[in-house]
Order: sequence, then C-alpha cells, then structure tokens
Amino acid sequence: MSLKIALAQVNFLVGNIEANVDKIIEASVYARDHLNADLVVFPELTITGYPAEDLLFRADFIAAANNAIYLLAERVTDIAMVVGFPERDDNKLYNSAVVLHQGVILACYRKQILPNYGVFDEQRYFTAGHQPCVFEFNGTFIGLTICEDVWKQGIIDNAKQAGAELMLTLNASPFNSGKIHQREAIICQQVKAAKIPLVYVNQVGGQDELIFDGASFVADLHGNIVFRAEEFKEQISVIEFDGHNTLLSSCAPLYNKISSEYQALVLGIKDYVRKNGFQGAILGLSGGIDSALVLALAVDALGQDKVEVVLMPSEYTQGMSNEDAIKQADILGVKYHTIPIAPAVNAFTDMLADIFAGTSKDATEENIQARCRGVILMALSNKQGKLLLTTGNKSEMSVGYATLYGDMAGGFAPIKDVPKLLVYDLARYRNSIAQVIPERVITRPPSAELAPDQIDADSLPPYDVLDPILERYVELDQSAEEIISAGFRREDVVRAINLVDRNEYKRRQSPPGIRITSRAFGRDRRYPITSGYKGI
Amino acid sequence: MSLKIALAQVNFLVGNIEANVDKIIEASVYARDHLNADLVVFPELTITGYPAEDLLFRADFIAAANNAIYLLAERVTDIAMVVGFPERDDNKLYNSAVVLHQGVILACYRKQILPNYGVFDEQRYFTAGHQPCVFEFNGTFIGLTICEDVWKQGIIDNAKQAGAELMLTLNASPFNSGKIHQREAIICQQVKAAKIPLVYVNQVGGQDELIFDGASFVADLHGNIVFRAEEFKEQISVIEFDGHNTLLSSCAPLYNKISSEYQALVLGIKDYVRKNGFQGAILGLSGGIDSALVLALAVDALGQDKVEVVLMPSEYTQGMSNEDAIKQADILGVKYHTIPIAPAVNAFTDMLADIFAGTSKDATEENIQARCRGVILMALSNKQGKLLLTTGNKSEMSVGYATLYGDMAGGFAPIKDVPKLLVYDLARYRNSIAQVIPERVITRPPSAELAPDQIDADSLPPYDVLDPILERYVELDQSAEEIISAGFRREDVVRAINLVDRNEYKRRQSPPGIRITSRAFGRDRRYPITSGYKGI
Repeated sequence: MSLKIALAQVNFLVGNIEANVDKIIEASVYARDHLNADLVVFPELTITGYPAEDLLFRADFIAAANNAIYLLAERVTDIAMVVGFPERDDNKLYNSAVVLHQGVILACYRKQILPNYGVFDEQRYFTAGHQPCVFEFNGTFIGLTICEDVWKQGIIDNAKQAGAELMLTLNASPFNSGKIHQREAIICQQVKAAKIPLVYVNQVGGQDELIFDGASFVADLHGNIVFRAEEFKEQISVIEFDGHNTLLSSCAPLYNKISSEYQALVLGIKDYVRKNGFQGAILGLSGGIDSALVLALAVDALGQDKVEVVLMPSEYTQGMSNEDAIKQADILGVKYHTIPIAPAVNAFTDMLADIFAGTSKDATEENIQARCRGVILMALSNKQGKLLLTTGNKSEMSVGYATLYGDMAGGFAPIKDVPKLLVYDLARYRNSIAQVIPERVITRPPSAELAPDQIDADSLPPYDVLDPILERYVELDQSAEEIISAGFRREDVVRAINLVDRNEYKRRQSPPGIRITSRAFGRDRRYPITSGYKGI
Repeated sequence: MSLKIALAQVNFLVGNIEANVDKIIEASVYARDHLNADLVVFPELTITGYPAEDLLFRADFIAAANNAIYLLAERVTDIAMVVGFPERDDNKLYNSAVVLHQGVILACYRKQILPNYGVFDEQRYFTAGHQPCVFEFNGTFIGLTICEDVWKQGIIDNAKQAGAELMLTLNASPFNSGKIHQREAIICQQVKAAKIPLVYVNQVGGQDELIFDGASFVADLHGNIVFRAEEFKEQISVIEFDGHNTLLSSCAPLYNKISSEYQALVLGIKDYVRKNGFQGAILGLSGGIDSALVLALAVDALGQDKVEVVLMPSEYTQGMSNEDAIKQADILGVKYHTIPIAPAVNAFTDMLADIFAGTSKDATEENIQARCRGVILMALSNKQGKLLLTTGNKSEMSVGYATLYGDMAGGFAPIKDVPKLLVYDLARYRNSIAQVIPERVITRPPSAELAPDQIDADSLPPYDVLDPILERYVELDQSAEEIISAGFRREDVVRAINLVDRNEYKRRQSPPGIRITSRAFGRDRRYPITSGYKGI
C-alpha cells in the first residue's frame, strides 16, 4: 500500500487561469515522470492563485476557473492531481479541492472554516462546506482539508472518523515573522492528537502585500516533521506513505528570524516587479539607512543591472550623505544619477512668494523639497517603465513622518512594514554576508535632511522607545494605559499614539508594501480616517 | 395603549463615544420634553457610530462603549431609549441594541444577519445572535431588529411569533443612487407579509466614503409608509402607535435622482471637512467641467468664505479656460489665486534634460505639469490647513486618465464615484437652481490641456460610449462578451476594459471619495493590483 506523494510548492500568478493551468500540468508531469509520484498536491485555490479578491465576483472568471478543472482532468493522466479552485454550485461559491485522476473527478472537498480576520475576507466570497471528504486511492483512504481547517480542532478528527488514514492539506498561508513556528506547532499538535499523518502544501511567492513562504511539510502520525520544503522557493518534492505512516525524507533547515525577514522582502520585490511586468526599479538614494537597505534588497531581488538610483541633494544634504550614497552605488555596481533639487525648489518658492508673504516657515517648505524629489523620480519611472520603490519604514508610516506625494511617492514600498530598529538589524545582517552598506550609514543619527542640522530625534521619541510603543499600539491593540503601565513614559506614549491616530489619511494613500509582521498597514488594518477616537 | 415613539435620525462621529453619548442624551431629552415621546429609537451602533471598522478590535474602545450604556441608562429618565452598541459578552462581540428605561436595561437584542459584502465587513467583527427579542413597554409588546435583519425573510416573522405587535429597527444603511426606493420597497414588502407595523431609524451623515441618507420611516401593518423623515438631514420626529397600528403622520417627499445625488455629494464634503477639523477647502480650478462642479458643491457644502481656488495655467491652457474659471469664482464669490506653472515645469525640464536627451515626449512630460500643480496645491493646503479637494471623476478613475500625485493629489475626492456624463447632468442641475457654472464650461469638449489642442476624445472613447461600458464592467461585473453583445463595439470594449484592469495601482493610492453608485472604488471593490486576469 505504499504511496508516493508529490508536494508542488509553486508560485502562481493571481488571476491568470491559463498560465496557472500550464504550471499545474508542467508540475504534474514532472512529479509523475521524474519523481515517480502517484499523486501530486497543489496549494489552495491553485487555479486562480490566492487571494483573487473581488475577481471572485466575476461570473466569467468563475466560469473559466471551473472549466479549467475539466480541461486539466483530461490533460494529465497516470497521476492523481489534488487541485484547489473556486467551485460554483447552485449559485453558491465554495473554496474547494478536487482530486483529478484519469480524466475524472475522484472527489471534491469544500473548505469548512473560512477565515474572515486579519488579511482574510473569505466569508465575503465563499459558503462553508459542512462535511469531511475521504477518498480511496491505490488502496489508501485519504482525507482532504484546506488551510484554516487544520488550525481548528475537530476537522481532522472528523476526517479520521470518516475513515481517513492520511490527510492532505492545500494552503495559502501568508508569511509573517515567526509564523512558521506557530504554524508547524499548531498543526503538528492537531496531527499528534488525531494520530494521523498529514501532508501540508503551501503556496510560495509575493502577491501585492502578502508573501507566501512555502515551507511545505509532512508530519508523521506522532506529529514529528519528517519532511520540509525550502522557504521562499518553488520546489516539487516527493515523500512516501507506507500504508501506515509517512516516512522520514529530508527537512530543509529553517531560516532564522532576521534571514527569513530579509528573504521575504527580497521575494516580495522580485515578484511585484516580475508579475507586474516592470523593466526594473529605481529609487532615490539619500545616504540614509532606509534607502540604503531598500537598494540592497532591490539588487538582491532583481540584479544590479535592473536597479538605478538617483541622488537629489539640497542645501541641507550633508556631504557625507552624497559620499555614502555614491559609495554604496559603486559597491553594488548600480547606475546612479545626481540631480540637485534647488532649481525646482527655488521655482516653487518664487511662485508661492506672494501668497506666502508674511507667513513663517513650517512643514510646508520641507514638503516642497520632498515633493520635488517625488516629481523627479516619477518622471524617471514614467519615462523608463521602471518601478519606483519608496523607502519609508514602518515607524515613519505609523507616525506620519513622511511627505505624501514626496518621499511616499512610488509604486511599491518594500520596507513599509519594517520598524526602524529592524531596518538597522537587516542592514547589519546584509553586511554580515558582504559589506554593501557603508558603515557610516548605519552609525550616523537618522535625519530627513529637510531643514538645517535636522535629525529625527527633534520630532520623534528615540526609536528604541518609539518602536516598542508602536508595536504595542498597532500590532497588539494595547491601550495607552497598558503601554504606560508596561514602563513607558506617558509623554512618549501620548505623542506616539496621537501621531498614529492622526495619520490614517496618509497611510490610506501610501503604496502597497510587503507584510512581515502580524499587523501591517494593509488589508489587515482597516481604520476609519474620519474618527473621533482618541487612543489617549 | 397608545405609544408615542420618537425617531432620532442623528449624525454621529465615528469613534467619539463621549460626544455621541452627549448627543444621545440631548436628543432623548428633546424627544421627552418637546415631543412628549414615551420611547426614542436611535440608529445602529449609536454609541460608536457606523462603521467603526477595526476600532472594534481595541479592548479599550469596546470597554468604553459598554460602560457608556450603563452611564446613559442613569443619565436620562422618564423616556425609554433604544440604543445600539457593540456588546462584549464572554469574549464575543455582538452588534446589539438595548432598551434603557429608568436606569435599567429592559431588553437586549443581538443582530442575527451580519452583512459581509459590498462595503460591509460585519463578520470580521461580530458574532451573530440567534433569537428574537420582544419586550413589553407600557402594555405594548415590541420587537427589535437591526438593519440587515429586515432585508431577509424570517426575522420579522419570528419576532411576531414571539409576540411582537410593533417592530423597531435600528439602521446604518448607506446611500447610493436609487437605494431609498429599493430599501422602502423590500422592507415594506416584509412588513406587509408579516402584518406588523415597523419603525425604521437610519443614521444620517458622511463617514469617509459613505453617506448615510437618513430618510427614516414608519410603515403601517399594510406596508404603507405613514411617516418619512427628511433625507440628508438630522431630524427628531415623533409618531404614534395606537395599540394596533401606526397612525399616519407626515411624509417628507423624496428627492428625485439627480437632486439626491447632489445632496449626497454636498453632505459628504461638509461632513468630511467638519468632522476632520479642516479650516476649509481649496481646489485647482481649470475652467473644465469637473473642477467647476466640485467648486459648486464645495461652496454649497461649506460656504463661499471657506473655499479658495487656484488657477494654474500652462502654455497649453486656452484663454477661455482662465476666463471661465475666473467668471465662476466671481459668480460664487470665492477667493482665487493665479499661479502659472511654467517656472516649475521649466526647472524640471532643465534638470532632466541630460537624462532625457534623445527620448521623445510622452505622458512623462504631461505628468510633470500635473505634478507641478499638485505641489502648488499641497503647499497651499499645508500652509493654511485647508483640505485639498481633487476633482477627478469616476470615468477617469476607471481608466486611469489622471496623474498620480498630480491632479490625483488631495485629501478628498468628491466626484470620484460620479461618471463623466453624470458630472454634466449635475452641473446642469445646479445651474437650473441658479447659474453658477459658465455655460461654455458645459458645452466645450473636455480636455486635460496637457498637450497642444488635446481633447479627451484623443485618448478615450466618447463618454456616451465609455460610461455605459464602465458601468457594465465595474458596477455590474459583466464580462466583455456580455457588453459586446449588448451592442457596444468590440474595440471600444477592449480599450476600456484593458484600461480599467491596468490602473488598479493608481486607484489604490487615490484619496477617498463619496460613494453614490452601487459600486464605487472604495471598500466595495477590492481588486488585486498584481493580477494576470485579463477582462478581455
């Protein structure tokens, strides 16, 4: 009763049903011919990619996805394929998995637990299934589950009671830092309790703000991991079920925290650029730590020849900023331009002189500088078809320490969910592999350089105070009082929280960025702009 | 057994629990002392305003909302208050309504049908209730329901079976054009079938992209409307229940389609400015129809002294554009500035000359002009604390005929959900009341004036073709083939749909705007940016 099962950890393009079907066929043929697999398992909603969001409301899209299943069944024989798709039946839509074999549908399972929290909106689209699905294949009774199902108690038990000897789970489980440990711990606990081996296949790749990290795995009936695919990479692997338990195969080692975060950011940039058909990426390089890290990430994601940087000094830019920026561009071998912003800033200053007569300088004048840089970068992006990467970090996004249409201009914000202290850690991590960021960029005090001798600490609490407050307020939903009683100074907490509350309007217009924490400023945080709520 | 019931159609501020409690007290005292009401009914989730979105995940916020109920119960006596709030019980959250009388809670109802489609995400936050709630008050048995409950069959019936003689419904039902007819028709049909009179109280006011139109009403047991409050206004009214049926009171007439759309836009601007504490509004006035309409709306919403406009001509701006813009500013009595953009455009052109050498002109050069205007307008907005209104319409938003950080820059986009043909209709409607938009603005062909002799028809199908295609594709989710078979030319459909598909990234960074159709580009349309789906 031995069974060879392939895990197809594949990177799909959301919405491109035709290309996804081709990928499924290619992977299935490879699993059959090169891995001698009897059966191949794909991630959740394979046909459409995940999440397809409101494309799921389009009747033509759903019809195409359902037709694709029949087409697929006939295109590949001599291996069973377990494929996810949005199943239309009787005017309802289900998040389903089918088993295709020799041109027919052997079994169909409908996801029972539909997540509707965080980044998930599945109850917006799907009706929940209400029963287990167990099918016989080559003498083995196999149960099917989909993603959230195996995070909840009861679903695996029900499948076992219905006769399953082995579970297959199709997943689209997005990355955040530390998630993999949580995921493996919870699911292995379920497996151990139910005493049934489980094959877990996860999607891999970047999709707008989400990163799917792969790391598909197999647990034996004791809840031990006997196989793990690599993180952040496509991989088609095979494992064996001996009729009783899954056999030990190989386990890719897990990245540590900092390297998994770095890899997630690299994959996010790579897939956003590739899947959206950009020629490459450009960014403004200031000599500061944020743009230095984004440049390193972009080069690691796209290669030096696809990345271009622009230095845009002003009268407030220190000499060392330009020196360090050029030094990094040289180390990484990327093309750079230098365009001083004074002519444009002076033009606007003159144009507004009459109206602004008698007023004193404030953030307006700083914003004009940032916006002149935005205009230059967007002009280069438009002319060359290159994606403009914005370089703002999560601490700035939280408190609104950024200029809308200025340094916030751009198509993608790679480190939008990276708090400032982690920006430093990631820079040091990258330099520990090979020094690509000049040391002085890391050691000098951070500054926006929009006014004489300005440093961030003039406007904000120091980052080693600010970042933990923000984590508690934004990610953990703690109240001001809770944060204060954890040992933070009231004035720092008040200042930080007021800024977070007040800057929702800026975040609403910010470009999408890569989610690496449990709460980014994306689909997972939906705050009103118009709000009388005061966090303190 | 006669009962006097007040309908408190009030405009709350989302998140401001303290201020909302004060408003509830004020309205209740008024209903008691001036209207001699026995009972007063408020809209859905009265305490927090609707929708409070992810504020509902904050433990401190929920605790404050729950405490407010007890406070409220004690603050007003000698009238029963029916108030909505997010009820925390046993670690679950319910969308509930309580009846408060003489310091105690007489009854509590938990909403049974939680909408999770369109703009609604209630299953993200709430657990559904499972039973009717009927309470006795002054000898009458009264049933409670909340919003979506009365759109579905069965909920009213169950309350009647549980003994209810009269239904009270708390609502936060957002406006879209024509919604009021649909709302009254569906609910009166339920009332008629169940043969039980119903009191329907709706929230009024603007909240980010949503407009709540009020128009609270009372239906008698035959499903006839015997009372209707005004649309788009706060109003506290009273009606009588004679122990058997609701008695005829007065019915505010309904606005027709175009005037309700106009009123919705005015209320949306007014509440966004007021609730977010802006000093007023500014906008760029081009001499074209879009900014002309936005100016008229802004003046109607805020008054002439709170609105300021800026003319920013370029070499491509025709003389009549400036003339008409000044003429409209004069008619409406608003302050205007003229700032030609040439100095800034020339500065950028020179700064980019080396890098752009050898390339030919394309959209890049047009975008630079639009972005120079964006910088000027944002500088004025920043300096004066006035909200920048962007003037793009829905047709442009759909096909991406707008410049990100250019004419798309701004805090609020009043006509973002208004298709171009409707822009003309609204302008004509406004002029029919009093001529505030120069006639030539309405009759001349629309142009972005970013290149010599440019008109929109150079880049887009004519709007009387484009707008119906967009409505079918965006609002009705029709496929390309369906639209073509409805009689549109294939090349127009292909062109329009490709543009819609390709411009999701722009819409993602656009400011919020007022929803007046059944599908705006807001919370009700959630498309991936990264997508291989081709609508055709």
